[in-house]
Amino acid sequence: MTEKPQVGLLLGDPGGIGPEVLAKLLALDEPRHEARITIIGDPAVFARGCEIAGVEVPVEVTKDADTPVPEDRPLLLDVRPSGGAEYVIGEANAINGRYALGTLRRALELAMKGRLDAICFAPLNKQALHMAGSPHNDELHFFAEVLGFKGYVCELNTFDHLWTTRVTSHVALADVAGLITEERLVPAVGLAHATLRAAGIENPRIGMAALNPHGGDGGLFGREEIDLLQPAIARMQGMGMAVSGPYPADTIFLKALNKEFDVVVTMYHDQGQIAMKLLGFERGVTVQGGLPIPITTPAHGTAFDIVGQGVASEEATRQAFLIACRMGAHRAR
Amino acid sequence: MTEKPQVGLLLGDPGGIGPEVLAKLLALDEPRHEARITIIGDPAVFARGCEIAGVEVPVEVTKDADTPVPEDRPLLLDVRPSGGAEYVIGEANAINGRYALGTLRRALELAMKGRLDAICFAPLNKQALHMAGSPHNDELHFFAEVLGFKGYVCELNTFDHLWTTRVTSHVALADVAGLITEERLVPAVGLAHATLRAAGIENPRIGMAALNPHGGDGGLFGREEIDLLQPAIARMQGMGMAVSGPYPADTIFLKALNKEFDVVVTMYHDQGQIAMKLLGFERGVTVQGGLPIPITTPAHGTAFDIVGQGVASEEATRQAFLIACRMGAHRAR
Repeated sequence: MTEKPQVGLLLGDPGGIGPEVLAKLLALDEPRHEARITIIGDPAVFARGCEIAGVEVPVEVTKDADTPVPEDRPLLLDVRPSGGAEYVIGEANAINGRYALGTLRRALELAMKGRLDAICFAPLNKQALHMAGSPHNDELHFFAEVLGFKGYVCELNTFDHLWTTRVTSHVALADVAGLITEERLVPAVGLAHATLRAAGIENPRIGMAALNPHGGDGGLFGREEIDLLQPAIARMQGMGMAVSGPYPADTIFLKALNKEFDVVVTMYHDQGQIAMKLLGFERGVTVQGGLPIPITTPAHGTAFDIVGQGVASEEATRQAFLIACRMGAHRAR
Repeated sequence: MTEKPQVGLLLGDPGGIGPEVLAKLLALDEPRHEARITIIGDPAVFARGCEIAGVEVPVEVTKDADTPVPEDRPLLLDVRPSGGAEYVIGEANAINGRYALGTLRRALELAMKGRLDAICFAPLNKQALHMAGSPHNDELHFFAEVLGFKGYVCELNTFDHLWTTRVTSHVALADVAGLITEERLVPAVGLAHATLRAAGIENPRIGMAALNPHGGDGGLFGREEIDLLQPAIARMQGMGMAVSGPYPADTIFLKALNKEFDVVVTMYHDQGQIAMKLLGFERGVTVQGGLPIPITTPAHGTAFDIVGQGVASEEATRQAFLIACRMGAHRAR
């Protein structure tokens, strides 16, 4: 029998829908069949989440991370600001941000010690993290810093059976073409390959998007496909990766929907995000790719407008949790 | 009572589904209520289309373009290569291409003389046009050449209530940012404004896409939104156009689907085409924007794989015809 992975669950921003969706998720039978779960956060925040969700979730509360996770219920590791905190519900706030950063740091420490195989966190609020003093534009670079990880990292997005990642991200469009080099393509495709394998897809089929409209139409408007992408794809095929392309960006997601690939690697942010957002990525999952520890989160945000009503769906968080379980089990093997 | 517009209908590539979808369209009552119709093409090609579609369409055949269009049926202006032609069904062929170019030229001549208010053509095949000696990459530039029109032209795409056009089109991505200038933005937005007005939308709401991901995030990655797009939008608002933005490209089509605008102006080809193709633009319409004569065509191609089976839908051609009628009536006023 395979040992279940040790998965850390974080409540995210205490002013958002994170606590209530996590409570809904943990009221299901599925989570404890898939993992040994350690909730890391403030018991009062989790209790409020359960109350809003209208569920009861038996947990074992402890302040000692070495407490074994019981077979039949999650461990709740009590992590909160000393002296408690008055969280603010429904808006971005420095107190909430400090709490969220504290729970993330603690989870990362436990993962580095081998106590957790994977982490799944409920939505954070970027503004609250900034107000709490985090200098990073996204969680991914915060994680890399705390972990002291210097390698290539990039987020992946997934929903249903579709995954995507990108070679360039938050850069000006004017700079994109200059940044498409073999030195960037190979790590991006390698990260897609490794992450999907960790998520349980044995030999992921990787479709690479072209940079230029119509893939440059035989060099008529842009030669990157001929001079750079095609040779790079051939070399990566030689490394044993099932990569193909480049495919014109305006139909590559139609091919992916038709299950011709498992993951689409785009050249720039909007090439993938236009498609993913139209296809309903709000119900999807973001994977913090490249890190030594699998970390996942639902794609949606803190949804301050509906917090406390108990109407928020746990489905995206459930998908994020299940991917964390698969990746955690793969890592623990 | 408003006089009905004079609309020219072309069968497109005779080896494709054009003749059969046009036959299906003309078997409906609607077309003759909306316009006085002149079919321009080879009667044998139209007869074959009717046979495949399983419909009978009474027409008055003539070789004289000055023949008045009857009230109750289309005029079929007999235009074909001298000595007849053996068209090839189901593949790109120079004979088909020459025929298609000949009918287009004749329709443009009639429009220039005031005999037609608008033109709607069934799908052409770009390869067949090339084989027939056309040096143009698209029909739009062929039309501009025949019409001797030197002004700004750009295609628009539309389906349901959504329209889009773009500031740059078939250029390398590396060149896009350098081509986004006020000298290009204003004509592109002006063309969208004028075309939608001609199509019957009194004061079209125009949403402009940002160039950079997240609209540059306050200048963090790209300053075009701050330095160029925002001031240009303000000036165009001053000209009386209901233009707003710039909006991040990965959500602008969600806003458009939510009916926040009538038309989206994108900065480059794939920004709009990724969205339109995912949303099912194959059932949509392309409008040859900027020309002195309204010209429309269905967005789908010749569909050589299903030609002759009578299964092709006339719906996109119907929509293209109805837009040609509205634009023709607007022009005739």
